[in-house]
Amino acid sequence: MAAGIVASRRLRDLLSRRLTASNYSGVGISLRLTGSSAQEEAPDHSYESLRVTSAQKHVLHVQINRPNKRNAMNKAFWREMVECFNKISRDADCRAVVISGAGKMFSAGIDLMHLASDILQPKGDDVARNSWYLRDILTRYQETFSVIEKCPKPVIAAIHGGESVAVLLLGSTCPGGRGVNLITACDIRYCAQDAFFQVKEVDVGLAADVGTLQRLPKVIGNQSLVNELAFTARKMMADEALGCGLVSRVLPDKEVMLDAALALAAEISSKSPVAVQGTKVNLLYSRDHSVAESLNYVASWNMSMLQTQDIAKSVQAVTENKELKSVTFSKL
Amino acid sequence: MAAGIVASRRLRDLLSRRLTASNYSGVGISLRLTGSSAQEEAPDHSYESLRVTSAQKHVLHVQINRPNKRNAMNKAFWREMVECFNKISRDADCRAVVISGAGKMFSAGIDLMHLASDILQPKGDDVARNSWYLRDILTRYQETFSVIEKCPKPVIAAIHGGESVAVLLLGSTCPGGRGVNLITACDIRYCAQDAFFQVKEVDVGLAADVGTLQRLPKVIGNQSLVNELAFTARKMMADEALGCGLVSRVLPDKEVMLDAALALAAEISSKSPVAVQGTKVNLLYSRDHSVAESLNYVASWNMSMLQTQDIAKSVQAVTENKELKSVTFSKL
Amino acid sequence: MAAGIVASRRLRDLLSRRLTASNYSGVGISLRLTGSSAQEEAPDHSYESLRVTSAQKHVLHVQINRPNKRNAMNKAFWREMVECFNKISRDADCRAVVISGAGKMFSAGIDLMHLASDILQPKGDDVARNSWYLRDILTRYQETFSVIEKCPKPVIAAIHGGESVAVLLLGSTCPGGRGVNLITACDIRYCAQDAFFQVKEVDVGLAADVGTLQRLPKVIGNQSLVNELAFTARKMMADEALGCGLVSRVLPDKEVMLDAALALAAEISSKSPVAVQGTKVNLLYSRDHSVAESLNYVASWNMSMLQTQDIAKSVQAVTENKELKSVTFSKL
Amino acid sequence: MAAGIVASRRLRDLLSRRLTASNYSGVGISLRLTGSSAQEEAPDHSYESLRVTSAQKHVLHVQINRPNKRNAMNKAFWREMVECFNKISRDADCRAVVISGAGKMFSAGIDLMHLASDILQPKGDDVARNSWYLRDILTRYQETFSVIEKCPKPVIAAIHGGESVAVLLLGSTCPGGRGVNLITACDIRYCAQDAFFQVKEVDVGLAADVGTLQRLPKVIGNQSLVNELAFTARKMMADEALGCGLVSRVLPDKEVMLDAALALAAEISSKSPVAVQGTKVNLLYSRDHSVAESLNYVASWNMSMLQTQDIAKSVQAVTENKELKSVTFSKL
Amino acid sequence: MAAGIVASRRLRDLLSRRLTASNYSGVGISLRLTGSSAQEEAPDHSYESLRVTSAQKHVLHVQINRPNKRNAMNKAFWREMVECFNKISRDADCRAVVISGAGKMFSAGIDLMHLASDILQPKGDDVARNSWYLRDILTRYQETFSVIEKCPKPVIAAIHGGESVAVLLLGSTCPGGRGVNLITACDIRYCAQDAFFQVKEVDVGLAADVGTLQRLPKVIGNQSLVNELAFTARKMMADEALGCGLVSRVLPDKEVMLDAALALAAEISSKSPVAVQGTKVNLLYSRDHSVAESLNYVASWNMSMLQTQDIAKSVQAVTENKELKSVTFSKL
Amino acid sequence: MAAGIVASRRLRDLLSRRLTASNYSGVGISLRLTGSSAQEEAPDHSYESLRVTSAQKHVLHVQINRPNKRNAMNKAFWREMVECFNKISRDADCRAVVISGAGKMFSAGIDLMHLASDILQPKGDDVARNSWYLRDILTRYQETFSVIEKCPKPVIAAIHGGESVAVLLLGSTCPGGRGVNLITACDIRYCAQDAFFQVKEVDVGLAADVGTLQRLPKVIGNQSLVNELAFTARKMMADEALGCGLVSRVLPDKEVMLDAALALAAEISSKSPVAVQGTKVNLLYSRDHSVAESLNYVASWNMSMLQTQDIAKSVQAVTENKELKSVTFSKL
Repeated sequence: MAAGIVASRRLRDLLSRRLTASNYSGVGISLRLTGSSAQEEAPDHSYESLRVTSAQKHVLHVQINRPNKRNAMNKAFWREMVECFNKISRDADCRAVVISGAGKMFSAGIDLMHLASDILQPKGDDVARNSWYLRDILTRYQETFSVIEKCPKPVIAAIHGGESVAVLLLGSTCPGGRGVNLITACDIRYCAQDAFFQVKEVDVGLAADVGTLQRLPKVIGNQSLVNELAFTARKMMADEALGCGLVSRVLPDKEVMLDAALALAAEISSKSPVAVQGTKVNLLYSRDHSVAESLNYVASWNMSMLQTQDIAKSVQAVTENKELKSVTFSKL
Repeated sequence: MAAGIVASRRLRDLLSRRLTASNYSGVGISLRLTGSSAQEEAPDHSYESLRVTSAQKHVLHVQINRPNKRNAMNKAFWREMVECFNKISRDADCRAVVISGAGKMFSAGIDLMHLASDILQPKGDDVARNSWYLRDILTRYQETFSVIEKCPKPVIAAIHGGESVAVLLLGSTCPGGRGVNLITACDIRYCAQDAFFQVKEVDVGLAADVGTLQRLPKVIGNQSLVNELAFTARKMMADEALGCGLVSRVLPDKEVMLDAALALAAEISSKSPVAVQGTKVNLLYSRDHSVAESLNYVASWNMSMLQTQDIAKSVQAVTENKELKSVTFSKL
Repeated sequence: MAAGIVASRRLRDLLSRRLTASNYSGVGISLRLTGSSAQEEAPDHSYESLRVTSAQKHVLHVQINRPNKRNAMNKAFWREMVECFNKISRDADCRAVVISGAGKMFSAGIDLMHLASDILQPKGDDVARNSWYLRDILTRYQETFSVIEKCPKPVIAAIHGGESVAVLLLGSTCPGGRGVNLITACDIRYCAQDAFFQVKEVDVGLAADVGTLQRLPKVIGNQSLVNELAFTARKMMADEALGCGLVSRVLPDKEVMLDAALALAAEISSKSPVAVQGTKVNLLYSRDHSVAESLNYVASWNMSMLQTQDIAKSVQAVTENKELKSVTFSKL
Repeated sequence: MAAGIVASRRLRDLLSRRLTASNYSGVGISLRLTGSSAQEEAPDHSYESLRVTSAQKHVLHVQINRPNKRNAMNKAFWREMVECFNKISRDADCRAVVISGAGKMFSAGIDLMHLASDILQPKGDDVARNSWYLRDILTRYQETFSVIEKCPKPVIAAIHGGESVAVLLLGSTCPGGRGVNLITACDIRYCAQDAFFQVKEVDVGLAADVGTLQRLPKVIGNQSLVNELAFTARKMMADEALGCGLVSRVLPDKEVMLDAALALAAEISSKSPVAVQGTKVNLLYSRDHSVAESLNYVASWNMSMLQTQDIAKSVQAVTENKELKSVTFSKL
Repeated sequence: MAAGIVASRRLRDLLSRRLTASNYSGVGISLRLTGSSAQEEAPDHSYESLRVTSAQKHVLHVQINRPNKRNAMNKAFWREMVECFNKISRDADCRAVVISGAGKMFSAGIDLMHLASDILQPKGDDVARNSWYLRDILTRYQETFSVIEKCPKPVIAAIHGGESVAVLLLGSTCPGGRGVNLITACDIRYCAQDAFFQVKEVDVGLAADVGTLQRLPKVIGNQSLVNELAFTARKMMADEALGCGLVSRVLPDKEVMLDAALALAAEISSKSPVAVQGTKVNLLYSRDHSVAESLNYVASWNMSMLQTQDIAKSVQAVTENKELKSVTFSKL
Repeated sequence: MAAGIVASRRLRDLLSRRLTASNYSGVGISLRLTGSSAQEEAPDHSYESLRVTSAQKHVLHVQINRPNKRNAMNKAFWREMVECFNKISRDADCRAVVISGAGKMFSAGIDLMHLASDILQPKGDDVARNSWYLRDILTRYQETFSVIEKCPKPVIAAIHGGESVAVLLLGSTCPGGRGVNLITACDIRYCAQDAFFQVKEVDVGLAADVGTLQRLPKVIGNQSLVNELAFTARKMMADEALGCGLVSRVLPDKEVMLDAALALAAEISSKSPVAVQGTKVNLLYSRDHSVAESLNYVASWNMSMLQTQDIAKSVQAVTENKELKSVTFSKL
């Protein structure tokens, strides 16, 4: 094994050479981060419909925060999601996000009352002009969920269910998307045992247009089931969701589930952000491109990213049998 | 909750304004539909290889109808499928379709005897001209199943199995596609416990070319299994088909399975046809496009479709706690 | 059934006419093949990091052969995989390939020591030139696995696991891809009960760039799980791999698993190579194209391939109730 | 030059071997073709809005034939174009097509009176249902011109202009597409000096939707000019059309221009139909695909087409210094 | 011609029915527009680097307004272009835009001084983090020109040249893009005789990345010339730009050229905005998609847009021989 | 102008900081390059069918070198082009390539004698196996020209014509591609007045399959002309080639033309190779992708390439009014 030892020394030399320049700044960043992670409430994140807290260093927790409206998505929500995730995208300290619903359920979906005033109210006599106006609204609604994808930090949806009777419409049964639009734009989905999922759009007379028909087939890879859910608006309970891969874990209740989601986020945030966020960018690229295109893209991506100090730091931790969370990666 | 009540009134006002113009025509259509649904046999649908009946209002039942040939796909079938589904596409009263096989099995697949005279008989001495001729045949065969996709009404395959010994070729084992080509072009698949599935093409010396290799990987999303099925031509029994998502339900026998499929079709046909058929168009578009392309397409689609009266009708039913089947949607 | 008998005669006539010309050459080929299959060691296949044997007629067995280095992928491996699979692609006698690992495990993944000297050693002062150099390396590494896809013969990965402690880096825990890059480029995956799978790249600070992020989502069709595996680098054990479709069978141990993989290869190799290899080409085409594009492509493909004598030979075997392995298909 | 002579003999041997089998059928075909080319009027082509004549052996001349309506495209035209070109596609004797306008001009474009009754007449109260209906009409209109592309025989547009005052609408100036939709779907465009071109759609309040906006930018490759023409509906005279490449030749008047177009068609029809029609198929494929995709497609196309006897016949003619029109190619 | 008269009456009836509902609102809009067009300075458009005036009703004139810096693109410009064109996109009164440069030249291109501080200043020691930062800048710079494309109103670039000696860098020769990035994102280009064009990026050591390499090849359709311009950074004078189609007209001097551009904008703005803006959306879609995809898209687009009153208004004007500028189209 | 001076100083500081590290290596490279450019014959480039000389520092001149066979492309050529351009791709000293023909013409195209033995000689009785074999040949032939594209250094075709009577086939007229396949794969085309161009494939009975039908339409952007050339095989003389953009300059004779091509290559080679070769990669990417895709790709490309020292060196030269050829860029 002598050759191995020589080789190891050579690797160690390589590592130390690469790391020399960055020792100082690394420490500085670490200190500042420790300081900032002490505070619970995330600064610069103040919204009507959302609440953003700093779950731990590098992890933000976004809650849909209209519990007495069953977290229905209203106009403030459409606007604030874009603002919130744009901020998170630029937040060099944040490395993973958990999104959940405050109160008894994740979200009752789109607030029909708000939608109605946009959609059902004719703007004028001309069909073309009404269409133009509606297309503009739709494009903006779509953006609400697309920002989750555009955000390079992994986003984990932590879904719990609760009762489905919504108060929005005179106490009658709740219409709307039940959040499927939102969660398909997230990277990983955990749910509590009481969660269920519905693609409700056909029941209110429309084809889902803010992401469900577009993303769900790429998420669960069972076209027959996707079609059935979309054509019938039937409920899918947590176990079926696990079986078909819509969620990757089912936990007993909200509390346990949220702990698991936050632990997952913490685990992810301990790794090199260059590696993790580059992984998200390339996974999304691969979803929508051929293998050959995706290989070409990642080669152009990694030709710079492989020059990061994070590789040397990570390899050093592995070779020294240390945990990654003991490593300080610079901000990204 | 006073604000909720005010808001609800506002929604109700919006709804009533949108609905005013359409009350009259809705009723008229409803009456005529009730009349036409009384008759069992679908008018204008007379074929050699198919039998089309009106299962109930808005639901057509297409049966492959050569039971003593084990529903093998012959030349009449190739031609009549196109004719049949083109008619269904234009049938404003039809909102969902079930396709099944008469007799003991769904279909033994392509009738080798018919295929042989097309494929195996050399047309002349020139390879290029033979190729040209074969490409023309293939393109037309492909169209037989593509019409199912082009038809905007959801099509449910109701598959039952039976024995696999076919009579077509002097009593020997049955070659052919076993209908996999056909069912992958359907939107939802239910099967009976006795059903099984085979991609038989390699056993007769060819690569599947009328849709199986093209659609199956997008239907079941497990590339390793798809490859195995296509390379070995092995049977996949009902339970494995459920596990991998090829079918979304397995029922005990043909009768129960057919009832379930027709009930599913009835459920789908109770909803707004604008919503359901727009959903099919967009699900198929999404299968073959990136998420960004699909979001753009649905925005252009829904800028007009959201102006339908069906939304107001559907929402009103939901707010008044009525079933959708009590709502009369105009023909599409 | 008289008509059936007449029809059968017609088919038989067609078949015999098609076969006349090829009887002679078929026999000649068969004899030569029998001769060559007697030898165990595959001629022309001599490598440092691989061992290629002739498992049986038409089946090659490629072993990653650095057992005391836990089959880590070193520079010889990168180069020799390309050479080996290019040879196999042109080998008219080979119809199916099994790839496995010699010794206690399939592969510990990329040999970090070799990678480090390529990646971690700065080539000069200029970032752009270093990037250019890295992109060149990456492109060549990608080719190592892409050759498996480009090879038209089906490739079955036979994976077994063993301990994960690697000796490469001073006895520390093993980094690297654990072969996920490689196996996703194979057509079918079998594994032993002791196998496990990891996408380790984030743990060493990089986004996977030689095929995992590009192919894994198309292989297992469960985006939430793919993301979790890629972001966390957690182990997936054999049973979960079966459940999500990464492998299509789990066998008790290496020996049984290898037997099953070789039996599958033998089964595949008994069928028409025109059919099987055309199936692989078109399945891969379909993975990366829309259904409409794929139907167009297969029509242009099969317009010539349907003129093969293999169809007549296969159909004759089926009609005469003979096994395909009794049929002699010409070399391809 | 001795080596050259030996090589030539080898080529000649190859040629003669390839040709032996086809001598007989070639002659037979030639005789029948000569017979059929004697008749002027094309059999099986009888229409209201079109007149199809056999210009010479292998060349059909399609005339838009409503001269006293300035060849405006009416409902018969939409239907008959599809019927006519589908027939031509299957006509094994036809190898090139010229399309021109009877009387004083090529075509005044879409007959607004016919369009109006389809487009302007509301079908009901529901915007979505009206949209559904309009989309169906549009798709069928588009097909009218797409059949020209789908027809594998080269189609040459022979355009002459005349006055633009149309009688259709109370004697006022003629709206409509002036045939630009149609001619962009043709393969080659010749025009007379008096021809001019207009994309008139914006002047009647709509975006061109039956092919102009889709094909014109791929035909003339000058985006600034295309945009100007489409936004302003201004006339482009023959010389500018030549300069920008919309037409490839301008001839002094209709008679000379038609002669030139027919001579071009005759020239094309003297060549191997396997070569010419394969060229059209691949040129259209290339227009809509990347270079890599197109190279892959043509390789799968030509793997059979290169086995044609037409190559040997063509090469023999070239080596013997004979004109191609002296060669008898079999029907395709 | 009696049938024509009857038909015309039928058309007229159709038209009047369609128009009845919209007469009132049309007038209202017209009055308000007349009022607003009186003011020269466009309200809500106040910038450091741009000046926006209302050239006439429905036409906005955007000037790059740093004449003493030769209109070099600085940080304010990057930010304000996005703001300006987003506003114009939403401005229902604006129907066409002209963009020109204040003072002696259109634009000297990117202000190297501003670029340098972004690009040349290393942000830290880690190559990956510097890359991440640069990619973010690039994406935002790209957006500056993409907003012109996303704006559905036609944008005409009115380019004049002047001397090329720039003052930005100590009086030395001017580097930067000379505005080619910007003008390729416009729909139509007019230039004065003194204009010239350069793709200067290679001269400053980089590959053009804010649109030139991406759009120029789709604008001028002469790949050999595009390559030469991009590899050599040579000047292309006005006449060559006309010859290759980069511009569609060359006018003698700035004044005449600007008049022509504004007249063109006025002409375009007199037409139905539904028609014109739908044309722009579909032309851009067609540029980047196959013909089949584009035909599908325009069918879904026009299924609503064909229901506009603008068609009836336009056709009525045409049949009554009135100019379109006499027609009042509602705002869009 | 005081602010400008301050800003300039800041830029100068940035530049000098960036340049410090690279001064040394730059000089070293420069010296070595000067030495190597003294020798005429390019080392490591020895071929039967090609001759490669070092025209000047950084510029290689590749000549097709079978003048007494009129530079027809034979088997050696197919093989050696791949070898030659793969070497050039990896040659860090080469920055631009000129390709021309030795003797009286550029190339008579494919040597029919060689092609015939590959294409016309039946390999066996089975059409499918013959097809498989032909597809393999075609793919390799295509690679011959694709290597020119894959080579990141700009390749200039310098074409001269001469008589077209070829000696290959018993002194008869020359068939074959006349090099159009080859030159469309080059980046820029110059020709002498005596050059002409033909797409000869249809005259020998086949559809062009090694690049002409795939690349020509993307090179000259006039679909009508491309179709005419491909369907008729007519000659296009130098002036028409200039007019349609196939070549970007026509020079009086071979000598002058070659000088111009070499001067162009020299000009290109004086610029930063990071800029020039990145430009080629991105221009080719843009040809085959949408604008949005291309913008995304270049952003990932340039995030590393913008960190090159070449920018600082180039900008410094520009600010100091020095020619780029006086700057020493490191090897790439």
